[in-house]
Amino acid sequence: MKCLLVHLFLFLSFSIIQASAQVPKLSQLRVQGNKFVTADGKTIIFHGLNASDPDKLEKSGHWDKSYFEEMKRWGATLVRFPVHPTAWRSRGKEQYLQLLDKGVTWAGELGLYVVIDWHSIGNLKNEMYQSPMYETTQKETFEFWRTMSEHYKDNTTVAFFELFNEPTVMTGKLGTCSWPEWKKLMEETITIIRANGAKAIPLVAGFNWAYDLTEVAKNPINAEGIAYVSHPYPMKREKPWEDKWTADWGYVAKKYPVVLTEIGFCGPDDKGAHVPVISDESYGDAITRYCDTNGISYIVWVFDPQWAPMMFTDWNYTPTRQGRYFKKVMQEYSVKK
Amino acid sequence: MKCLLVHLFLFLSFSIIQASAQVPKLSQLRVQGNKFVTADGKTIIFHGLNASDPDKLEKSGHWDKSYFEEMKRWGATLVRFPVHPTAWRSRGKEQYLQLLDKGVTWAGELGLYVVIDWHSIGNLKNEMYQSPMYETTQKETFEFWRTMSEHYKDNTTVAFFELFNEPTVMTGKLGTCSWPEWKKLMEETITIIRANGAKAIPLVAGFNWAYDLTEVAKNPINAEGIAYVSHPYPMKREKPWEDKWTADWGYVAKKYPVVLTEIGFCGPDDKGAHVPVISDESYGDAITRYCDTNGISYIVWVFDPQWAPMMFTDWNYTPTRQGRYFKKVMQEYSVKK
Amino acid sequence: MKCLLVHLFLFLSFSIIQASAQVPKLSQLRVQGNKFVTADGKTIIFHGLNASDPDKLEKSGHWDKSYFEEMKRWGATLVRFPVHPTAWRSRGKEQYLQLLDKGVTWAGELGLYVVIDWHSIGNLKNEMYQSPMYETTQKETFEFWRTMSEHYKDNTTVAFFELFNEPTVMTGKLGTCSWPEWKKLMEETITIIRANGAKAIPLVAGFNWAYDLTEVAKNPINAEGIAYVSHPYPMKREKPWEDKWTADWGYVAKKYPVVLTEIGFCGPDDKGAHVPVISDESYGDAITRYCDTNGISYIVWVFDPQWAPMMFTDWNYTPTRQGRYFKKVMQEYSVKK
Ligand SMILES: [Mg+2]
Ligand SMILES: [Mg+2]
Ligand SMILES: [Mg+2]
Ligand SMILES: [Mg+2]
Ligand SMILES: [Mg+2]
Repeated sequence: MKCLLVHLFLFLSFSIIQASAQVPKLSQLRVQGNKFVTADGKTIIFHGLNASDPDKLEKSGHWDKSYFEEMKRWGATLVRFPVHPTAWRSRGKEQYLQLLDKGVTWAGELGLYVVIDWHSIGNLKNEMYQSPMYETTQKETFEFWRTMSEHYKDNTTVAFFELFNEPTVMTGKLGTCSWPEWKKLMEETITIIRANGAKAIPLVAGFNWAYDLTEVAKNPINAEGIAYVSHPYPMKREKPWEDKWTADWGYVAKKYPVVLTEIGFCGPDDKGAHVPVISDESYGDAITRYCDTNGISYIVWVFDPQWAPMMFTDWNYTPTRQGRYFKKVMQEYSVKK
Repeated sequence: MKCLLVHLFLFLSFSIIQASAQVPKLSQLRVQGNKFVTADGKTIIFHGLNASDPDKLEKSGHWDKSYFEEMKRWGATLVRFPVHPTAWRSRGKEQYLQLLDKGVTWAGELGLYVVIDWHSIGNLKNEMYQSPMYETTQKETFEFWRTMSEHYKDNTTVAFFELFNEPTVMTGKLGTCSWPEWKKLMEETITIIRANGAKAIPLVAGFNWAYDLTEVAKNPINAEGIAYVSHPYPMKREKPWEDKWTADWGYVAKKYPVVLTEIGFCGPDDKGAHVPVISDESYGDAITRYCDTNGISYIVWVFDPQWAPMMFTDWNYTPTRQGRYFKKVMQEYSVKK
Repeated sequence: MKCLLVHLFLFLSFSIIQASAQVPKLSQLRVQGNKFVTADGKTIIFHGLNASDPDKLEKSGHWDKSYFEEMKRWGATLVRFPVHPTAWRSRGKEQYLQLLDKGVTWAGELGLYVVIDWHSIGNLKNEMYQSPMYETTQKETFEFWRTMSEHYKDNTTVAFFELFNEPTVMTGKLGTCSWPEWKKLMEETITIIRANGAKAIPLVAGFNWAYDLTEVAKNPINAEGIAYVSHPYPMKREKPWEDKWTADWGYVAKKYPVVLTEIGFCGPDDKGAHVPVISDESYGDAITRYCDTNGISYIVWVFDPQWAPMMFTDWNYTPTRQGRYFKKVMQEYSVKK
């Protein structure tokens, strides 16, 4: 036992918490049945926007409050921060935390809740990924959540921790991962998060690039107060989508809160068009109607002019085709409210 | 989803495949019962030579077509490339692939099939190895085969992928690894290889430095179209060998193809003499007769003047004792054919 | 097979063993029932002192024979070397081994036995630790013991290998580790140690920072000739301690040897006072009486003027409060003997 280091550590942690305590507090969200509710029991269904990686935005000079103001103007009530493991490592923990702190502060000041998303794609069991930018390890993933949990444990703006963006074995190219193996990794992460004091709601995705939640029916994650995630891009299934969505992930919303942390589309000739996002406004109509009908929250991908499907084309925030579509839809929710 | 990187990635992969497509194609090998057969159903039993590590040969100026011509002259129909993990890492993936591409091209032009061999020795479960040159990880091993599978999926010269050279716990010095644990690692590797499109035949070794296949009887690898490996160096068992060989690994050849990817010997006073390779021509007679009788392929270790037991003494390819022995035996097969 | 490297390796190992063979040999210790006995069957109960990390002592100019002479003067019959993984890596294996060799030699010359302690704190299953200085991996832990076992296999002074200082999940902050998971890691380590020829007695700790051995009752480590460890600092339980100690770890001493490899206390206002070490001489009386009554060995933490609870205040070895207490108690054992 060496007490000096421990004392220093506690002191530093305390200082950080004090600093973030200066941000005005949003109401503490929690899970009640299949809903998200505030401290006073009000249900919230979110319509949000995906930021691009804070590291990318900072490098291009756009990680500032006006970016958040614009997202709010478009109707967002929730913002997702996709933290790429590569960016996390290259910027370094302390520096990256400073970026996140700024974004969380701006979001909180504007009344926007935040999802922190560990933005990897692949098979965490084998530590094999879709491409190098998604490389991480089980250890790094656990430590990331330990850090987030310690750092944001008293911060109510950070309402969600999305544990792993898109689990996939790429039809075996990354080996195998059974649902029980995945479940165990997620439960371990949730244990770590909660033991470190965080009250953020863990978001758990299923296989097939976070599309498929069929395994939840018989073998749900063994933890209270969590929500499930799907990324039902248009080409994951053929139109008409609704019955397939219900069978694949929508049924989960009867019992647990569900957040579609990525939806979006673009036309076949749009910049960045790729499988599985190519579609048209009929997809927008279908997915938003499905969410509205079933009390499901969603977050559109992506509030950036370079990543696809993009929502605007330049830093005047000129909307793209899906930008126009979702801006209108999302602004109407706030009018109705 | 970020499409730009993915497109670039596909483009690069495609370019590489196009390049290797210029090599004249050997007939696609596959497993049929306990045999290797060509596309038109012809059985092949191989008599091959072990190259030393392409990285070593390149560094000493001998990774060239004449090396392959000499191996063919000695009667080889198959060449094994032992890729040491240390060499793989220090040269780097792209640079090492260029070496392999050259060797595969020369082999293909000469009608020689190729085994790519991940040349580690130790306990992959614990990631503990016989010596530092064999250090690797499960992750690196999986990624190596992912890379090989993507890269050579349309290349028929690369007929075999030898998943892990010599599994051994060194009687506990490297901890434990049960057959089910080993089997699972091999099956995961085969899943990765096949999902990435490769048709190369996976070669799976057993414990005791790839000598012992007794576990296969009751608990074979759960995958079709594979073959098994043994390295029955003379001192693994005492003379007379035949019944022991049958019990330890030879029985497998009744049901699956077997390749002895390392055999060889030297006299007790020869340069590099060491356990378990010390013997004499009676070993050569026994092992080649055993293979001929049972339809087993073999590859002699090693076509190099420094690694032991060596087949030649200088770069004029002056044969050593085992060099003389196997050169004669192997050339006679081609005459008979 | 490449024999040259292997020969070189054997040669180097042999040289090292020869060197350490020049140290006069203490009697080979072993486990007999719940006792430690010498080669001629004499039981030894140890009263020892914890050195600080040899790397720290070397850096401050105190890793010398006089340090060991002072420990002997205070009544120590056993010295524990807490090797921090960070120090091991930063100094490097060969350099750190030289430090250890010196300490082992001095100890042996003075008739003191040595515990080599892999001084990590945390969850080895998840490779998550209390703080950065304790970071290690399963692989590094296994390799450390492989190295120690090869290096000290013929050295009788190094009587104990303490496999992992303080296992803890920090109430979930480091995730989970079940007793069977921990047991498996310890059994794997013991396999490695013994296969590499070491006769040192493995010391195995339980959870809660090496306090809790309750799981041993139903599910002991599956290996003969080992001993168990507890670190019963005063605040782990409330006074009166004795019945709780018996239930938590003391009962193990009926069947297996037990060593309390860390005990100690300081007053609430003493330098470095921290949970769980704050107490007074009544703790000293209780724990030493408990050990004497039950044939349990102990080692006081720590013979250093900076780490806490410290035993002396300056390099004249001026005793602290616990220093005065334990110096007196330990010197009396030698008088009685
Ligand atoms: Mg301690
Ligand atoms: Mg790992
Ligand atoms: Mg995505
Ligand atoms: Mg070999
Ligand atoms: Mg590991």
